[in-house]
Amino acid sequence: MKALVYHGPGVKAWEDVPKPEITNGKDAIVRVDATTICGTDLHILKGDVPAVTDGRILGHEAVGTVEEVGDGVSTVKAGDRVLVSCITVCGTCRFCRDGQCLGGGGWILGYKIDGTQAEYVRVPFADTSTYPMPDGAADEDILMLADILPTAYEVGVLNGGVQPGDVVAIVGSGPVGLAAIMSARLFSPSHIIAIDLADSRLEAARQFGADITVNNGRQDPLEVIRSLTGGLGADVTIEAVGVPATFELAVALSRPGGRIANIGVHGEPATLHLEEQWIRNITITTGLVDAYATATLLRLAASHHVDPSRFITHHFALDEFDQAYDVFTRAADTGALKVVLRRGA
Amino acid sequence: MKALVYHGPGVKAWEDVPKPEITNGKDAIVRVDATTICGTDLHILKGDVPAVTDGRILGHEAVGTVEEVGDGVSTVKAGDRVLVSCITVCGTCRFCRDGQCLGGGGWILGYKIDGTQAEYVRVPFADTSTYPMPDGAADEDILMLADILPTAYEVGVLNGGVQPGDVVAIVGSGPVGLAAIMSARLFSPSHIIAIDLADSRLEAARQFGADITVNNGRQDPLEVIRSLTGGLGADVTIEAVGVPATFELAVALSRPGGRIANIGVHGEPATLHLEEQWIRNITITTGLVDAYATATLLRLAASHHVDPSRFITHHFALDEFDQAYDVFTRAADTGALKVVLRRGA
Amino acid sequence: MKALVYHGPGVKAWEDVPKPEITNGKDAIVRVDATTICGTDLHILKGDVPAVTDGRILGHEAVGTVEEVGDGVSTVKAGDRVLVSCITVCGTCRFCRDGQCLGGGGWILGYKIDGTQAEYVRVPFADTSTYPMPDGAADEDILMLADILPTAYEVGVLNGGVQPGDVVAIVGSGPVGLAAIMSARLFSPSHIIAIDLADSRLEAARQFGADITVNNGRQDPLEVIRSLTGGLGADVTIEAVGVPATFELAVALSRPGGRIANIGVHGEPATLHLEEQWIRNITITTGLVDAYATATLLRLAASHHVDPSRFITHHFALDEFDQAYDVFTRAADTGALKVVLRRGA
Amino acid sequence: MKALVYHGPGVKAWEDVPKPEITNGKDAIVRVDATTICGTDLHILKGDVPAVTDGRILGHEAVGTVEEVGDGVSTVKAGDRVLVSCITVCGTCRFCRDGQCLGGGGWILGYKIDGTQAEYVRVPFADTSTYPMPDGAADEDILMLADILPTAYEVGVLNGGVQPGDVVAIVGSGPVGLAAIMSARLFSPSHIIAIDLADSRLEAARQFGADITVNNGRQDPLEVIRSLTGGLGADVTIEAVGVPATFELAVALSRPGGRIANIGVHGEPATLHLEEQWIRNITITTGLVDAYATATLLRLAASHHVDPSRFITHHFALDEFDQAYDVFTRAADTGALKVVLRRGA
Repeated sequence: MKALVYHGPGVKAWEDVPKPEITNGKDAIVRVDATTICGTDLHILKGDVPAVTDGRILGHEAVGTVEEVGDGVSTVKAGDRVLVSCITVCGTCRFCRDGQCLGGGGWILGYKIDGTQAEYVRVPFADTSTYPMPDGAADEDILMLADILPTAYEVGVLNGGVQPGDVVAIVGSGPVGLAAIMSARLFSPSHIIAIDLADSRLEAARQFGADITVNNGRQDPLEVIRSLTGGLGADVTIEAVGVPATFELAVALSRPGGRIANIGVHGEPATLHLEEQWIRNITITTGLVDAYATATLLRLAASHHVDPSRFITHHFALDEFDQAYDVFTRAADTGALKVVLRRGA
Repeated sequence: MKALVYHGPGVKAWEDVPKPEITNGKDAIVRVDATTICGTDLHILKGDVPAVTDGRILGHEAVGTVEEVGDGVSTVKAGDRVLVSCITVCGTCRFCRDGQCLGGGGWILGYKIDGTQAEYVRVPFADTSTYPMPDGAADEDILMLADILPTAYEVGVLNGGVQPGDVVAIVGSGPVGLAAIMSARLFSPSHIIAIDLADSRLEAARQFGADITVNNGRQDPLEVIRSLTGGLGADVTIEAVGVPATFELAVALSRPGGRIANIGVHGEPATLHLEEQWIRNITITTGLVDAYATATLLRLAASHHVDPSRFITHHFALDEFDQAYDVFTRAADTGALKVVLRRGA
Repeated sequence: MKALVYHGPGVKAWEDVPKPEITNGKDAIVRVDATTICGTDLHILKGDVPAVTDGRILGHEAVGTVEEVGDGVSTVKAGDRVLVSCITVCGTCRFCRDGQCLGGGGWILGYKIDGTQAEYVRVPFADTSTYPMPDGAADEDILMLADILPTAYEVGVLNGGVQPGDVVAIVGSGPVGLAAIMSARLFSPSHIIAIDLADSRLEAARQFGADITVNNGRQDPLEVIRSLTGGLGADVTIEAVGVPATFELAVALSRPGGRIANIGVHGEPATLHLEEQWIRNITITTGLVDAYATATLLRLAASHHVDPSRFITHHFALDEFDQAYDVFTRAADTGALKVVLRRGA
Repeated sequence: MKALVYHGPGVKAWEDVPKPEITNGKDAIVRVDATTICGTDLHILKGDVPAVTDGRILGHEAVGTVEEVGDGVSTVKAGDRVLVSCITVCGTCRFCRDGQCLGGGGWILGYKIDGTQAEYVRVPFADTSTYPMPDGAADEDILMLADILPTAYEVGVLNGGVQPGDVVAIVGSGPVGLAAIMSARLFSPSHIIAIDLADSRLEAARQFGADITVNNGRQDPLEVIRSLTGGLGADVTIEAVGVPATFELAVALSRPGGRIANIGVHGEPATLHLEEQWIRNITITTGLVDAYATATLLRLAASHHVDPSRFITHHFALDEFDQAYDVFTRAADTGALKVVLRRGA
C-alpha cells in the first residue's frame, strides 16, 4: 500500500510500504477513507518530536472502513465504518475510567506506531479506540471528532468547567481555539472572548461563536475582561496556543476562584506568579485528550448541536499529501483551518 | 483595654487602646478568652506585609465570649462562647457560596482591621464569621479551628480531592503541614508521605499520622514515591511551605492525572514545567481558607475524629505576648508548634 | 395600602391593609412594581394549603423598588430596583451554602408571612433574598426569575444533571415544564421530549424548544423514548406535574443509570417500583427552589440566553386581581401561561 | 470437574460436570481456590429468581488461579492469582465508564452463566472482570472484595456521598449492612447509627464500627436520630435489607437535603411519600455493584484500612457445600456472617 512516511526532519514521502497486519487479538485493520493533518504533524516534520523516528507513517486522525479484526475485538467488525480516534485507549487499566489511559494506550498513532496518513492503518485496542459512524453521516461530518473537537471539549471546556452564564476567555483562535469556542457554546456561557494577534483568526472566532474579540497586539485583554466583569476577571480561561506568554496571560485573566484550562502543547517552562496567585483560589488544569467524550460529541453532531465539518477549508485526494501539507503549513496565506484528504476524491 | 499593637517592622507593644465598639449592624464585640500566634503574624512583624500599618492590632484567631451584637446579627448573642474565624465572610456576595467571599470579607482581622491579640475584638459579619462552641468544649479544644485546621483541610485536603486509598505526599511538616496530615487521614488514604528537611518535624509528622517520612536533605522524595507507586507518582500532593523549590517538587511528585494543592504563602514566582506537564492531566489549585468547612470540623472535633488541641505545645497568659512570640519564633529550638495565650491563665 | 387578602377557601379580596414596616434589622420594604400569580396560589385559594390562614396577603413573586431597609441590610438601599425571590434565604445557617435554607427562610412569602400581591411587601433577609435588576431590564424581562425559572432550572435541570448530548424527557408542559424545557436547552441536550395530555401545551413545548412531543393520551411515551434510545430510556427525566401517575411514568422512562428530577408539588404518595429499580442505578431527586441559581439566570437573561418574558401572555393593572386570577385559572380556555399585574399599568 | 449445580427450587448437588473451556477471546478459565455463599444464592435456591434454570452452576464470588486465557486477554495470564468479581464488565460499552456495564456484563456469573461454586469457572471479559491479588495477601484477606465490600462501598457509601462529619444511619446489620459500616468509616462520619431487629447483629455492628445502635423492635429510630441531630435527621441513610418497610424507614430518617442510598434487593414496590418529600431536597439512589471501586478496596486492604477477613466466621472444604449452605442458612442460630469454602482446606 501507499503511506506518508517520515524520513527525518523536513523529509516525508508518499511511498510503498507493507500493508499492516493484525499483531494482537485486540487490533483492527482499517482502510482509511478520509484523514487530515494536525499542527502536531508539522512539529514532527520540523524535528521537534525526536521520539518519531525515520520510517514512521504519520497521522493520527481518520474515518475509515474496518477490513479485519482480531479475536479479542467484539464491538466492530469487517465492513463497519468507524472513526479512528487520535487516542488509543486500552480500556482495562485502572486509570482508563478516570480519563487517562496508562495501560499502553494514549497518543501512539503516527508517533510510537504507524499512523493514519496511509491507505490502511492498524488500530490497537480497537474496541475502545474506534467509534461506529452515525447513520447517514458523511466522512467529513465526523472526521474532526478524531482529535480537534474532543481535545478542545475535554481538555478546554470540560476541564475548565464551563457553566451557563460564565464569562469564558479563550487565548488563541487557531483550529483548536475555534473548536474550544464551538464546544464552549454547548454550555451557554454569557460571553466568549476570543484573543489572538491575527484579525483574520478573530473574524473566524466570531463566526464560530465568540461575541467579543480582542487583538492583543493592539488592545489589552486584561482591561477588556476587567471592564466586562466589574474588575474580577474571567470565570474560565482556556489556553490554546502553547507558549509561556499566552499561558501567563491566561492565568492573569482569571478571576479569583476561576479555572484556567491549558490545551496548548508547550515546549518550555512558564512562570507561575504564585506570589499573586496563592491567595486567589484558582485551578489550573493540563491534559491530553482521552476521547472519553467522543461518543457524546458523535451524538451532538448527529443532532446538529455541533458541526465538525465547519473546520474544513480545503479538500484533496489521498495521494495529494504534498499539496495538502503545503496549504496547511501556509495557513496564514491560504486561510486553511483544516484540510481533508479522501480516498477516491 | 490592652492589645498587641504593631508599630512598624520589628516593633510591637502590649499597650492601652480604646475598647472596640459596634460600627455596623452586622458586628459583634467579642471578649477574647484564648488566642494564638500564626506564622503570618511573624511575616507581618518582619515588615513583609506592607498593607499592615502602624497602630494595627495583630492576630486573626480566637475563642471568646460575645459581649454585644449589632441589630443585624441574629445567630449569636451576648454571653455566647464562640470561635472567631480567621476569615470574615459577608454571606451575601455571589461568591460566598462558592467558597470565596468577594463582598468585603476574606482575611481582614489583624490585617486590614484590628485583630484578636487583644482583650476585645470587633468581628464584622458576625453571623457568618463566628461559630458557636460545642457543648463542653474547652477553649483549647477548638482554638486551632480558627485558622490552621480549616486552612489545611479546605485548601490542602479538599482542594486536593483526597480519597480513600490515595497516596498523598505532603511537602512541609510545619504546623500547617501537620494539620494537612491530620485532616487528610479523615479520608483514609493508603499512604501519607511527609517530606521535610528537619528530622524533628518528620518525627512530629509520624505522630500526626504520616506512615512514611522523607528527609529531602538526605533522600530523593521522587525516588521514594515512584518506588512506592510503580513509577507513577502521588495521587495528591500538598504544598505547605511556600517557596518555589517546594512547589516545583510538589508538581514533580504528582502522578499523571494527579492533583497538586498549594497551601503555602508564596513571595515569589515559581517555574511551571509545562513542557513536561502539558500532557500529564494534572490539576493545580491555590487558595486562602474560606472557613466553609469550619462547621464540619467543629462536629469532627466534638466526635473526637480530629483533636485540634494536639498542636498546642506552650501556654501563656494573655499579657505574655513577648514571651509567646519569642517561643514561637524560635520554634526550631523550643519545639513549639502552636502557642496559646489565655485570659486569666 | 391595598393588598390581595385571603379569607378562607375560595375567598380573596383586594382591600385596605396596613402598610408593612421593618420589624427586623435584616428586612427591606419593597414597593411592588410588578407581580404575577402562581399555580400554588390557586392551590391556596382552593384551601389545599391549610397553613395559610385568614388574613394572609398572597403572592411570592415580584419586581419592585426598595423603599426602606433595616440596619442590618448592606447590599440594597432605598431606590434600588430589585427582584424579590419567592424564596427567602437567611444566608447564615449551615445549610444555606448547600442550597436549602433551614435557618428561618425557605418559602415563607404569601404563605407563612404576608406576600407580594400588594402595593408593598416586607422582605426578610433582604441581602440574600432580593437581587439587583440588570441595567436596562424591564420588569417583565425579569419577573419570571422570581420563581418559575429558578424552580425549573435548579430542581429540574441542575438536580437532573442535564449534560450536552443527553436525551431529556419532561413530563408536563405547563408553565414549569416549559421553563424546564427553556433552561434544559442551556446544556445542549441532543433531544428534549415533552409529554402532556393537551395538544395546545405540546405546541407551546415545541415553541419553547422541545424537538419531540408526545401526547400520552394517544401515544405511549415509553415506546417513543425506547425507540429513540435503542431501548435504553432517557438520560434525564423531569417530572413537572405532581401526581402519582406522572411520577411513576418519569421513573419508568429513565434509562439504567439515569436521573429523575421531581419538580411537581405532590399531594399523595407514589409507588416506587423498587422490585424493578433496585438494580437500575437510578437517582431520584426532589426539591424546592433555593434561588442559588437566580444570579446566574439574571446574567443569562441579560446576555439573551434565556428570555423570561416569553411566558407572559396576559397583562393587568395591579388592582385587576379578579380578572387576572380568572384568566389564569381558566388557562385551558384563555391560553394563559403567566399573567402580569403592573403598578400604574 | 465437580460443581454445585442448581436443579430447581430447593435442589442442589455437588456433582460431576464438564470443565469449562474458553469460548471467546476475552475469556479466562480460573481454578477456584476459595469461594463463598451470598444471600442471593439462598434466594435462587428458594426459587425466587426464575431466570436461573435447572443445570446452572451457582456462585459469583471467588479467589482463584488463572489456568488459561483467550487471545484477547492481556492483563492476566496463566498462573496469576486473581480475585473474580461478582460483576463482569465488558470495558467497551459507553456506560462502563459511568459505572454500569450495559454491554453484556453486569451480574451474570451463577445467574445467566455458570458460576464460581465449582472447581473451575469461565470468566468472560477477564481483563476487566478479574483483579490481580496484592503481594502476600491470603485468599481470605481478599475474598470479600468479590461482592460484599464493593457492593456496600459503591452502592451504599459512595452513592450516599458519605463525607467527614456526617451522621450516617444504616438500616440493617446483616453482612452487607456491616460492610457498609466498615466502609463508611473510611470517610470519618461523626456518627454511624446501626438499626436492626436482632441484638446479636447490633452487637456485630458495634464491633464493625457503629457508635450508636437502635433495636427498632424496642426503640423508635426516628426519635433517636432526631434527638441526635437537633430534629433534622441523618445526612446519609443506607438501606441494607430490601423490604418496603425498611426503605420507607430509610427515607423518613433523612434530613432535608439528605441522601438515601438503597443497597437492598427488593421483591415488591415501596411507597414513596412524595406529599412530604417533594419539598425536602432529598436524593434517592439505587444500584447494583459495578466493581469500579474494587481496585481501590484492594489497595485499602493492602494498607490495612479495611480488613475483609473479619466477615468470615466459618471455614469449609470445597466439597462441603451442604454443610456450608446449612450453616449460612441458619445464620441466626450459627452466628454466621460469611462462610468460606477452600480448595484443599
